[in-house]
Amino acid sequence: MRIGYGIDFHQLVTGRDLFIGGVKIPHEKGALGHSDADVLLHAICDAMLGALSLGDIGVHFPDTSADFKDIDSKILLAKSYELIKAEGYSVVNIDASLCLEAPKIKPYVQQMREVIAGILEITVKDVSVKATTTEKMGFVGREEGLVAHAVCLLQKELSE
Amino acid sequence: MRIGYGIDFHQLVTGRDLFIGGVKIPHEKGALGHSDADVLLHAICDAMLGALSLGDIGVHFPDTSADFKDIDSKILLAKSYELIKAEGYSVVNIDASLCLEAPKIKPYVQQMREVIAGILEITVKDVSVKATTTEKMGFVGREEGLVAHAVCLLQKELSE
Amino acid sequence: MRIGYGIDFHQLVTGRDLFIGGVKIPHEKGALGHSDADVLLHAICDAMLGALSLGDIGVHFPDTSADFKDIDSKILLAKSYELIKAEGYSVVNIDASLCLEAPKIKPYVQQMREVIAGILEITVKDVSVKATTTEKMGFVGREEGLVAHAVCLLQKELSE
Ligand SMILES: [Zn+2]
Ligand SMILES: [Zn+2]
Ligand SMILES: [Zn+2]
Repeated sequence: MRIGYGIDFHQLVTGRDLFIGGVKIPHEKGALGHSDADVLLHAICDAMLGALSLGDIGVHFPDTSADFKDIDSKILLAKSYELIKAEGYSVVNIDASLCLEAPKIKPYVQQMREVIAGILEITVKDVSVKATTTEKMGFVGREEGLVAHAVCLLQKELSE
Repeated sequence: MRIGYGIDFHQLVTGRDLFIGGVKIPHEKGALGHSDADVLLHAICDAMLGALSLGDIGVHFPDTSADFKDIDSKILLAKSYELIKAEGYSVVNIDASLCLEAPKIKPYVQQMREVIAGILEITVKDVSVKATTTEKMGFVGREEGLVAHAVCLLQKELSE
Repeated sequence: MRIGYGIDFHQLVTGRDLFIGGVKIPHEKGALGHSDADVLLHAICDAMLGALSLGDIGVHFPDTSADFKDIDSKILLAKSYELIKAEGYSVVNIDASLCLEAPKIKPYVQQMREVIAGILEITVKDVSVKATTTEKMGFVGREEGLVAHAVCLLQKELSE
């Protein structure tokens, strides 16, 4: 078994769509970034890559590459999963916490979990997405941006 | 085995008591919140709930409910533990980190660990509470608030 | 098996060297602290100590002690490892994330991993060091400071 941790940050700005956990969420601001700026999927990618010391999302999907401009982060999650699968590992469970002041993401959590579980070939029960505000404090509290933390536990698959 | 992660934030304001880890700590400010605003117990609740994808503290104990107004967070921790026990899991260990500029919590750490271990039916050795300042930076550094991070490892109990 | 989590913060100021992960990194600012202020090694120390509920870095290496003034944090990491070894545990893997706006640490990551793995008697494959900016937000975004998060998984060695 191996443990991984990921953290990601994005600014919230007008004129961008807001993607979190592979789901497009109606909001007056969206996350700024080279890709679709999905803070939750990026933190999960980093947790999985980190568990196997495979570098980080910036190494695999550099924001200087035209290949990843506005890319759907579900593709990055699928690619990260291919990397851990190639090492003979599967995901035991993922637990993630979003820090954002608005919007309320509770109505979208189930859909996020289904998207993530589908890509990672696990059940919805093995993917947790939680959310909290920062109680109006800091850049998250001022709605300048959002943060995601994710941890994962991976296990080595038995060779057949 | 399953992994969980929790993070919680509360403002520090005058005219409130300061509860951390189930212990009332003398300080000129207290944590603001709907419940007793115990940042450490909330982060631990979220870590345990997250490990089993049971939602988060906001889902189970909404701050819009009169039931949880000024509630002792030890009750929320006990309820969270009942939920993971009902799924057949126990706690292997918990490691938490408080980020706060003041007061010094070291004199209270042992008592916090005893309180938490008692509720979770584990030994004091299985509960770690650490603390750090943010070196005067950010909202924690300005003593506007405090943050707690917690991780936990859960294991499935063998059925008898 | 046991899980640990550590977080550490240091201000970035002129007139100090910048040590991260045991490596001296050329930069116009360095990290401020009583020791060499190596934010990554401190977070890893705290994760290891926390996994076994051995207190935190502030308890073992107080910043009020002349013994630790400007000390090389590799010594603190080695001492922390001795403590967990004395309890009969070894490190399964470590995953760390640095949050800093500048400088780019990618060229130094491999060297950091070698330093850490050497001290902890594990392979480089068992130590992950990732990095992210905070997208210009907060005190990290303003280059006032840097933050490190680390998680670790420890296992009990079989007695011979
Ligand atoms: Zn991102
Ligand atoms: Zn709370
Ligand atoms: Zn430090």
